[in-house]
Amino acid sequence: MNVLIVFAHPDPQSLNASLRDVAIEELMAQGHSVELSDLYAMDWKSPVDRADFAALDPDARLKVPAASGEAFAADALTADVKAEQKKLLWADVLIFQFPLWWFSMPAILKGWVDRVYAYGFAYGVGEHSDRRWGERYGEGRLAGKRAMLIVTAGGWEQHYAARGINGPIDDLLFPINHGILHYPGYDVLPPFVTYRVDRLDDAGFDLVATSLRERMRTLETTVPIPFRRQNGGDYLIPSLELRPELGAPGAKGFSLHRR
Amino acid sequence: MNVLIVFAHPDPQSLNASLRDVAIEELMAQGHSVELSDLYAMDWKSPVDRADFAALDPDARLKVPAASGEAFAADALTADVKAEQKKLLWADVLIFQFPLWWFSMPAILKGWVDRVYAYGFAYGVGEHSDRRWGERYGEGRLAGKRAMLIVTAGGWEQHYAARGINGPIDDLLFPINHGILHYPGYDVLPPFVTYRVDRLDDAGFDLVATSLRERMRTLETTVPIPFRRQNGGDYLIPSLELRPELGAPGAKGFSLHRR
Repeated sequence: MNVLIVFAHPDPQSLNASLRDVAIEELMAQGHSVELSDLYAMDWKSPVDRADFAALDPDARLKVPAASGEAFAADALTADVKAEQKKLLWADVLIFQFPLWWFSMPAILKGWVDRVYAYGFAYGVGEHSDRRWGERYGEGRLAGKRAMLIVTAGGWEQHYAARGINGPIDDLLFPINHGILHYPGYDVLPPFVTYRVDRLDDAGFDLVATSLRERMRTLETTVPIPFRRQNGGDYLIPSLELRPELGAPGAKGFSLHRR
Repeated sequence: MNVLIVFAHPDPQSLNASLRDVAIEELMAQGHSVELSDLYAMDWKSPVDRADFAALDPDARLKVPAASGEAFAADALTADVKAEQKKLLWADVLIFQFPLWWFSMPAILKGWVDRVYAYGFAYGVGEHSDRRWGERYGEGRLAGKRAMLIVTAGGWEQHYAARGINGPIDDLLFPINHGILHYPGYDVLPPFVTYRVDRLDDAGFDLVATSLRERMRTLETTVPIPFRRQNGGDYLIPSLELRPELGAPGAKGFSLHRR
């Protein structure tokens, strides 16, 4: 398989970098091809701005969805964005690896999503009508591929547990797993999360590395998070609310969107 | 009161910019003082990297919490970050205004959080012991102040409803409202969210502007989201899990953390 790792940590000596190298080594030992987008090493441009849309009239308003859609259709996106889109089409598996900063991804990785996920490429795909609301959430440009997160957190695992004060880790990662990965079609594997990473000693690292290798060996067989498909019959169209008869009685929140 | 608006849209002619100006005009008419951090206009640096920590030994590993804590303690953070921290201490109310991109804030605003929220300033504050896990979630450097989000979304309101396919807007914004605003102490007001903004005509804009003015007039009296305080007795220490007797029976997810 072809695997793309999009990596976002500023220090090449970091724990994240060591785990990345463990993952790459295991993937290559399994015969996979690996591409790495090391965003800090690439000096990735984070903000979406006018410079992304050279064809836009200087006097025109910058409406990001429209501008990115026009640039994508005209093959006029910037070279850095086009290169990443090409890697996404090449890869059978996409991995985002990052430290959890303020309960989300570092800015540089968010900027990768904001810029690479152009209209017409990752959203605004497919028929929009009374019967159909495009191809997203399980369908779309990247359907049939797999994705997963490799995340480190400084805090304790209990603080991210079902009743932990930060909120459950699966819910904190839902905007990424569901909103960024499932949206353009990926089947999303459960995330690989390591906690209290500032206290990790050599023995702890070895344990984490062993688990990560196992995850890299089972990319093809791990059961994805069972997110519902938008066009699989579970949602009313066009309101896209879950059908009243579905979901556990009284259930609320993100868990409704898992089968 | 003193109000700081941190604004993140690349186009000075955008709907977001128009709404920002409506908010500022109403705040000033009420006699408040307003500061604006217009991140695109300021060419705000998004990524956290070594350049943020000039005192760090070039051979040393960059551990972001430690490096930011040392730089904060030594008053050695960069001038742009120090200026924003000063504005936060000055402001009685903090407003983040942004378009919802991929169910979160634009990269440039995430980069503001990642860089301005230094260790010792916004986290790592207060006593950490067997009895106490620091001052956060309702306590901390910015306690006693209020904060709120002004957000625009391209999608339909139903898609963000309790059973909508994107997930409920309050849950999507929880990592920001709870994890970024309540964490260093803010009382967080309900967000002001406008949907389907690409279809907003003049009459629609007037309605939204009227509602926004009302919210700006009631900043001092609006009831905050009733997030639980970490050190108010609702959580076990040190696991920081919600006490078993609290929360509705069978309740799960982020809603547990509201009283």
